Amino acid sequence: MTRIYFNDVVTRDGFQIEPNFIPTDDKVKLVDELSQCGFAKIEVTSFTSPKAIPMLRDAEEVMGRIQRMPGVEYTVLVPNLRGAERAFESRADEFNLVMSTSETHNLANLRMTREKSFAGLAEVIRYVDGRTPINVSLSTAFGCPMEGDVPQSVVEDFIRRFTALGVRGVTICDTTGMAHPAQVASMANDLQKQFSELQLTFHFHNTRGMGLANVLAAVQSGIIRFDGSLGGLGGCPYAPGASGNISSEDTIHMLDAMGYDTGMNIPKLIELARELPLIVGHPVPGQVAKAGSTSQLHPAPAYVAELR
Amino acid sequence: MTRIYFNDVVTRDGFQIEPNFIPTDDKVKLVDELSQCGFAKIEVTSFTSPKAIPMLRDAEEVMGRIQRMPGVEYTVLVPNLRGAERAFESRADEFNLVMSTSETHNLANLRMTREKSFAGLAEVIRYVDGRTPINVSLSTAFGCPMEGDVPQSVVEDFIRRFTALGVRGVTICDTTGMAHPAQVASMANDLQKQFSELQLTFHFHNTRGMGLANVLAAVQSGIIRFDGSLGGLGGCPYAPGASGNISSEDTIHMLDAMGYDTGMNIPKLIELARELPLIVGHPVPGQVAKAGSTSQLHPAPAYVAELR
Repeated sequence: MTRIYFNDVVTRDGFQIEPNFIPTDDKVKLVDELSQCGFAKIEVTSFTSPKAIPMLRDAEEVMGRIQRMPGVEYTVLVPNLRGAERAFESRADEFNLVMSTSETHNLANLRMTREKSFAGLAEVIRYVDGRTPINVSLSTAFGCPMEGDVPQSVVEDFIRRFTALGVRGVTICDTTGMAHPAQVASMANDLQKQFSELQLTFHFHNTRGMGLANVLAAVQSGIIRFDGSLGGLGGCPYAPGASGNISSEDTIHMLDAMGYDTGMNIPKLIELARELPLIVGHPVPGQVAKAGSTSQLHPAPAYVAELR
Repeated sequence: MTRIYFNDVVTRDGFQIEPNFIPTDDKVKLVDELSQCGFAKIEVTSFTSPKAIPMLRDAEEVMGRIQRMPGVEYTVLVPNLRGAERAFESRADEFNLVMSTSETHNLANLRMTREKSFAGLAEVIRYVDGRTPINVSLSTAFGCPMEGDVPQSVVEDFIRRFTALGVRGVTICDTTGMAHPAQVASMANDLQKQFSELQLTFHFHNTRGMGLANVLAAVQSGIIRFDGSLGGLGGCPYAPGASGNISSEDTIHMLDAMGYDTGMNIPKLIELARELPLIVGHPVPGQVAKAGSTSQLHPAPAYVAELR
């Protein structure tokens, strides 16, 4: 059975764009509960400036209070040198650096050119100097909502440059849900061939309903690491009302049904997903939490007995 | 390019369980607009008793008033002999008969045993006597929400018996969204081998988020006919709040992006899906209508120009 490694990003990617600040107690409790579900990795928070992302201004406190479970990696988003210092102090297991493969998206999102982003992240990587494993998340790798196609050669070039700097892993992000399964399969095959030593993670959004189909195409092509968000939380500013991240529980439920070893406690995960709307105060897109797993059967209506 | 044949069931499968009666004018207009989008088939309505399904009590009027477009098949649900008479009078292009492959589900849904259902449908088929092509939709073929697994041999046995009676096609229905991609691939391969002369259609629900992944597994295995519902309308009584049918536009958008020939006018289809919430008076699950197709790009924020 192929082992799948899942990274839940709800407390970072999900909570950072919630309209209301999620209380620190709730964040800590949720990370602890995620740890108990069996995730390989949890992206706990972000060491961005509290002014830039006020919803995650409690990053130090959250990292200080979570119960670390052996076997779970606690990763944090690190945008710059100052973030790396804070992430060291918080004893994060991995630093996740982010930039976009589309120039326009990088300018819109990070307000600098890709080359300036790369130079800044390279500085972070040199500063870390191997003391903590580094992952780089490359946004809009399957397409940019403003530029359209992002050439695969551009994505490969950034992977090559970050690999040369010694990063452990790269996450290929479909930031606004533009990837389709044929593209995913092609990209997965090409990247695994070229970067066989790298931890490759795929990060999909369900913006146009293709999220789990893209996961299927990726696992069929040998990808074993995925990002997802509990409940599918985490939106997309270019598609109001549309889904954001793929739902961790929907994805894991599917892969488990197909016979993959997810290492997850699925009933516990579904229960946890059911708590999420109470924490954020609104419904979330995940489906399995509403419908129950396929193994949860329903009683027949009473009249059926008389008809047999 | 592989041609995909899509059957939209929104006006039958979707509207039959809406809480409010959809006015006949709206139904006729919607079918006419669906015709213009390029669907191969449209399941217009159901000739069930108006007492059993009052929401479709205007079946005759709808069938009488729609504009039939050459190349589009207008199919109707036919539950019994009386329904077949009405369907003949309405000049439907195809009669769609329905029963469940799970005994408990058939009892719960049709209030008779599978054998009684089969005998009744066989009577309809003999009465039709080849004058109109017949399709049989087999419910819960991937699992029953009350019984659990439905053995594939049971599904195959019903296909075999209906094939012996001369039906043109069989639709394999995942009525409550229990199918997963590995099961779909296996079933698609087995059934195509055994029933190579039959028009095989797959009908998926997105109840647990796996709908489009199941479509992907099916097309990869050679299935070219699918049911879907505009907007993903049509729920599941066992999963309140969960999605029902796969969204036609989300599915077609994905297959088109992958390079399949869907024969559809996708911008028109997405526009039509955007009208649906106004017709039914509530949001619908489809994603592409909210997010727009991947080819619809967005302008960059104004500040980007200054940063370049």
